[in-house]
Amino acid sequence: MAGSTLGTVFQLATWGESHGAGVGVVVDGCPAGVELREEIVQRYLNRRKPGQTRYSTPRKEEDAVEILSGVFEGKTTGTPISMVVYNKTQRSGDYSQIAESYRPGHADYTFDQKYGFRDYRGGGRSSGRETIGRVAAGAIAAEILKSLGIQVCAYTKEIGGIAADPSRSHLENVKESPLYMPDLAASQEAELLLEQKMKEQDSVGGVIECIVKGMPAGVGEPVFDRLDANLARAVMSIGAIKGVEIGDGFEAARSFGSQNNDSFQTDSSGRVTKKTNHAGGILGGISDGSDIVIRAAVKPTPSISRSQQTVSRNGENIEIQVRGRHDPIIVPRAVVVVEAMTAITLLDMLMISMTSRLEYLQSFVHARKPLS
Amino acid sequence: MAGSTLGTVFQLATWGESHGAGVGVVVDGCPAGVELREEIVQRYLNRRKPGQTRYSTPRKEEDAVEILSGVFEGKTTGTPISMVVYNKTQRSGDYSQIAESYRPGHADYTFDQKYGFRDYRGGGRSSGRETIGRVAAGAIAAEILKSLGIQVCAYTKEIGGIAADPSRSHLENVKESPLYMPDLAASQEAELLLEQKMKEQDSVGGVIECIVKGMPAGVGEPVFDRLDANLARAVMSIGAIKGVEIGDGFEAARSFGSQNNDSFQTDSSGRVTKKTNHAGGILGGISDGSDIVIRAAVKPTPSISRSQQTVSRNGENIEIQVRGRHDPIIVPRAVVVVEAMTAITLLDMLMISMTSRLEYLQSFVHARKPLS
Amino acid sequence: MAGSTLGTVFQLATWGESHGAGVGVVVDGCPAGVELREEIVQRYLNRRKPGQTRYSTPRKEEDAVEILSGVFEGKTTGTPISMVVYNKTQRSGDYSQIAESYRPGHADYTFDQKYGFRDYRGGGRSSGRETIGRVAAGAIAAEILKSLGIQVCAYTKEIGGIAADPSRSHLENVKESPLYMPDLAASQEAELLLEQKMKEQDSVGGVIECIVKGMPAGVGEPVFDRLDANLARAVMSIGAIKGVEIGDGFEAARSFGSQNNDSFQTDSSGRVTKKTNHAGGILGGISDGSDIVIRAAVKPTPSISRSQQTVSRNGENIEIQVRGRHDPIIVPRAVVVVEAMTAITLLDMLMISMTSRLEYLQSFVHARKPLS
Amino acid sequence: MAGSTLGTVFQLATWGESHGAGVGVVVDGCPAGVELREEIVQRYLNRRKPGQTRYSTPRKEEDAVEILSGVFEGKTTGTPISMVVYNKTQRSGDYSQIAESYRPGHADYTFDQKYGFRDYRGGGRSSGRETIGRVAAGAIAAEILKSLGIQVCAYTKEIGGIAADPSRSHLENVKESPLYMPDLAASQEAELLLEQKMKEQDSVGGVIECIVKGMPAGVGEPVFDRLDANLARAVMSIGAIKGVEIGDGFEAARSFGSQNNDSFQTDSSGRVTKKTNHAGGILGGISDGSDIVIRAAVKPTPSISRSQQTVSRNGENIEIQVRGRHDPIIVPRAVVVVEAMTAITLLDMLMISMTSRLEYLQSFVHARKPLS
Repeated sequence: MAGSTLGTVFQLATWGESHGAGVGVVVDGCPAGVELREEIVQRYLNRRKPGQTRYSTPRKEEDAVEILSGVFEGKTTGTPISMVVYNKTQRSGDYSQIAESYRPGHADYTFDQKYGFRDYRGGGRSSGRETIGRVAAGAIAAEILKSLGIQVCAYTKEIGGIAADPSRSHLENVKESPLYMPDLAASQEAELLLEQKMKEQDSVGGVIECIVKGMPAGVGEPVFDRLDANLARAVMSIGAIKGVEIGDGFEAARSFGSQNNDSFQTDSSGRVTKKTNHAGGILGGISDGSDIVIRAAVKPTPSISRSQQTVSRNGENIEIQVRGRHDPIIVPRAVVVVEAMTAITLLDMLMISMTSRLEYLQSFVHARKPLS
Repeated sequence: MAGSTLGTVFQLATWGESHGAGVGVVVDGCPAGVELREEIVQRYLNRRKPGQTRYSTPRKEEDAVEILSGVFEGKTTGTPISMVVYNKTQRSGDYSQIAESYRPGHADYTFDQKYGFRDYRGGGRSSGRETIGRVAAGAIAAEILKSLGIQVCAYTKEIGGIAADPSRSHLENVKESPLYMPDLAASQEAELLLEQKMKEQDSVGGVIECIVKGMPAGVGEPVFDRLDANLARAVMSIGAIKGVEIGDGFEAARSFGSQNNDSFQTDSSGRVTKKTNHAGGILGGISDGSDIVIRAAVKPTPSISRSQQTVSRNGENIEIQVRGRHDPIIVPRAVVVVEAMTAITLLDMLMISMTSRLEYLQSFVHARKPLS
Repeated sequence: MAGSTLGTVFQLATWGESHGAGVGVVVDGCPAGVELREEIVQRYLNRRKPGQTRYSTPRKEEDAVEILSGVFEGKTTGTPISMVVYNKTQRSGDYSQIAESYRPGHADYTFDQKYGFRDYRGGGRSSGRETIGRVAAGAIAAEILKSLGIQVCAYTKEIGGIAADPSRSHLENVKESPLYMPDLAASQEAELLLEQKMKEQDSVGGVIECIVKGMPAGVGEPVFDRLDANLARAVMSIGAIKGVEIGDGFEAARSFGSQNNDSFQTDSSGRVTKKTNHAGGILGGISDGSDIVIRAAVKPTPSISRSQQTVSRNGENIEIQVRGRHDPIIVPRAVVVVEAMTAITLLDMLMISMTSRLEYLQSFVHARKPLS
Repeated sequence: MAGSTLGTVFQLATWGESHGAGVGVVVDGCPAGVELREEIVQRYLNRRKPGQTRYSTPRKEEDAVEILSGVFEGKTTGTPISMVVYNKTQRSGDYSQIAESYRPGHADYTFDQKYGFRDYRGGGRSSGRETIGRVAAGAIAAEILKSLGIQVCAYTKEIGGIAADPSRSHLENVKESPLYMPDLAASQEAELLLEQKMKEQDSVGGVIECIVKGMPAGVGEPVFDRLDANLARAVMSIGAIKGVEIGDGFEAARSFGSQNNDSFQTDSSGRVTKKTNHAGGILGGISDGSDIVIRAAVKPTPSISRSQQTVSRNGENIEIQVRGRHDPIIVPRAVVVVEAMTAITLLDMLMISMTSRLEYLQSFVHARKPLS
């Protein structure tokens, strides 16, 4: 299937392999009139660039985005926006190891099972570079949401079991931490763990949290297109993600109704709010106007230089040390990807929710009529 | 949007409110030639019926399914299968409480925000009865998978923090336990907790696990339609689910690469298998031939008779005791719903994977040609 | 595939066979707040009922629609609307003829080729009764459009080559004509032709025209979801339709640019209009504010009692006289179906066009904000 | 909406404006294992290139395609195929005329109405260059179909009312005719008409016919995804197309049942065929194994240098002579576009039809099983 296409109204199709000509995305259904320049998208892409700290691969990827269509005089025209990042650092390289054997924790085996063969250069389509298209599209979605007063912000909640302590966590800390953690003490502790695991030729996982502020109530469709369901899908579709939670998530399963229910209240200004937010801003699949809270579990980088047992393409039991220099942890670079997938999903569902009442249609048509 | 429609090739549209004429589903895209009778679907529906143990509401719902189309002489014809369960126990009842106030933990507020008003009788479309259509469609999907040698089996993994101990867990126990737990000792402990919480007019949450055996490798699409992503969406779309895990899930985030990677090996029969299954049967979004493992966090039933603070429809701060007799726990009745959503997703993606190689197309057309 | 499901935002799934339990439709994505009662839908269904003139089959079908969900206190709730018409006149009948041979011009052969077998009772899913679900959904779409000032009106343009003369055509005549023609002289001439062809045990085809008035400019998406493209698909999906035209259609192909281009002009009130409407109200796939004009070619009823050559299911060359009493012409009963498919398509695309500009999103969110 | 995305399993998203950086397409869902090189796609693109005869614009467009992803060692990998044609001949040019006024017969006015403004350079997204992405994707679809024994072939049937005479028409003639007509005498006559109309600063329309040979029976879904319905949509979505016919099309509407029904017969080899093919190879929306026949009406080029009345962007009534050198006829260059849209639709529906029977699924899974 068209597994690289996502969305109903705000729709994207990503393409590209790690060591092909480039990677990119076509964003279809973006509203007209959005200010867009390459620098805006680049700012988001830079956050996933490798080589920025010693916890990401020292490969230098320039990842300079070019916008090929859909923008005229600095504004989106409503037609498809094609964005591309050419692969500048692709090397002819020696890929015989990946070509001939199945790296544990990677998609080598499953791609071969599915397609009969695969582009083995640097992981091909299952490479982390696949997320460039997501982040470029997510940049547009996040900018649109921002212009609507909706802020999407992700950060590292936990690394190797070391969690940010809510009492010490501040969003301003995130950019101070090389691991994008809001708790700088936890960040330093996590750095020590990473140093140790790098020495042991091992890798570390973690948890990313994403908070959405300013989301209006009433977005999301009951039943299959619940906001939480579509967020779960979007976030789980990122490579290496093994779990997704909304609000209290698995803790809610260990809680009782009297604790877990969020009481409604009317504040002094007459606005309905909730006293707590165990639900993570979504009730019955529809946003309730509180902060939306999502968490994603990221597995440890599967590429480790330690020796591992596996099989070769022709079925022999072999040992493998995965060559090359890899990130000892995926989490920090995946933070902006979680943010992107969240923004893309929220925008699509927000646009869909414009059609939920006859009165919205009526005021739209009424406003349109005099034009013709 | 059409939020009650799901699937690409095997597609379903559910409909119906708690206290309307009935609830149902249209299954479109079901292959021709599947044996189907009402009794087969009924067997699945009976597993979500209330009133079977003292931990579910004593409301008697007959939930007798009728198949209205798509089946001829006991076999599916390839055309849409319409199934309906008429609401027999609907009562005129007094809904003024739900109509005029927002129950904490329910979708009352968000429906009003989205649509401007709502069918408040018994929760309307956000009632648990909405899942009847899912289970009826899931029954068909599960039967098709079974005929292909693929078994989907869900059970209660954990209740109120009391988890089934793997060493004492056996699938045969599931039907012995009134809570559908595979560990009978844990089940008894959980029953005691439930008794206590019922006395306290409170409710309990839990975790459902679903295991898929016999899944061929190569199913799932890289990028957005990953098997894990679509499973996450399908399961998270069930009311009351707040988290989804694949394989080790959030534990993977606390693990290291050397532990979390599953080694491949060739067994004596020449078959490639994995020594462990931390990945839960999915690598790069594609099934790897191992068991698929999914877990879902279920929040405690939001309807509790204990007094809670909330607001009325016109914004007054009020106290509410949710009337009526409700399940103190959703988990046991949701087990078959998780199974249904898993089966529906697997079948849809299995069918799509038939198109992944030119050679499959060629043998299909070659086989078809002589017919015309 | 889910070939019985249509639409992106306003979506429908139809189901049902000619001689099964019933036929129906689930409409998902209908906005909340639309006044809806069974009588409103029934009024549209009555227009496709057989037995109203001597040019339609004397079978009495009551076709009484029931609304099973999605409506509360006389208004749509925004949740799926399930509508059903039970088959009251189904007869056990003798279907051995259809079961064992392939009627020329029917789908018997292709269903067998596709599915391996078919529900042969009265044509099964390929029966004209399949259109009941379309008309029921179309009734809702047409009523919504009407409330927005958009009128969709179809009629018979031509029968057996006898065309309504524009100079004698008036929409008021349509209900006077048993063939739904706007030109009563042509209608009488066509009746004579029909009488003659009935005597000859033959059948007649014709052309249906549909006019849409009040359509705002700016609806339709460039490229694949052009308004004309989606209208063509929707109308061509009706059984027996073999051609679709927009505006001048095939005549445009015989015209020259200087004749075919419609000049724009500003009228005295400052409104931009076109002097002519060869384009049929659509330019570049987007409505231009003029009347939308669509025409559909309807083939003659394939069921004729005259002897025809064909093959049996096991491949023998045989002669067949199709038994039963059938409409000598499909056209008059298909008029409301063309209207329904047009209304469904226009509404879906109108709703989608609400998302085409950032300013629309901004005013929507701005209006929503204070609610939460 | 995502109006530049098409298809369910074989899916494409096109992008690009006439005078932007380039135009292109992402093909998602292409099966793995298809031989693909740029030369193959280029061959199709060359057929729509301008400047090949004096009846197309003398603008030189090189239109050299680059494949950026999805192909490895000469074969498709099953992942998205991104193809781009950079705009080499874009000129800063003087677009004030298009920017400030609405050309009759063009989408200038409707784009402004829809989006509030438009990229006016050379027509922007509504330029004929938009079809490059379609043809590139169509090349892949056509090559796959060819490898399955299915040939898609389009040609010019009629120009300015001058029709190819079936008795003189041969497919071999098509490449001899500068207008791609199968009847060389008609082609010469049409050339004379074109010469005259060019002198008169006018333009001419025509009809394109497309024949599909070797299509297996059983492809297409009853109801909304009928093969004819999806073909109609795909072909009508090409700019300038105003009508679509299947088989006898509008002639069927003037025919009688006894003439229009195609008799089935079993030939000496035991194969079921039809004696005639008025239906154009499709019955009940499903292919019947005969040739599929589609015709499309193409309007005359709207750009003519003759003076026309129109309005300016600020509503003044003005006269316009559309500057620049334009094709006096669109038809010959659109032939390959019709072929492309037909191939894309047939392949998508052929792939979907692989899922129509349980037995197909069973043999697929059975064949897959031993691999894991």
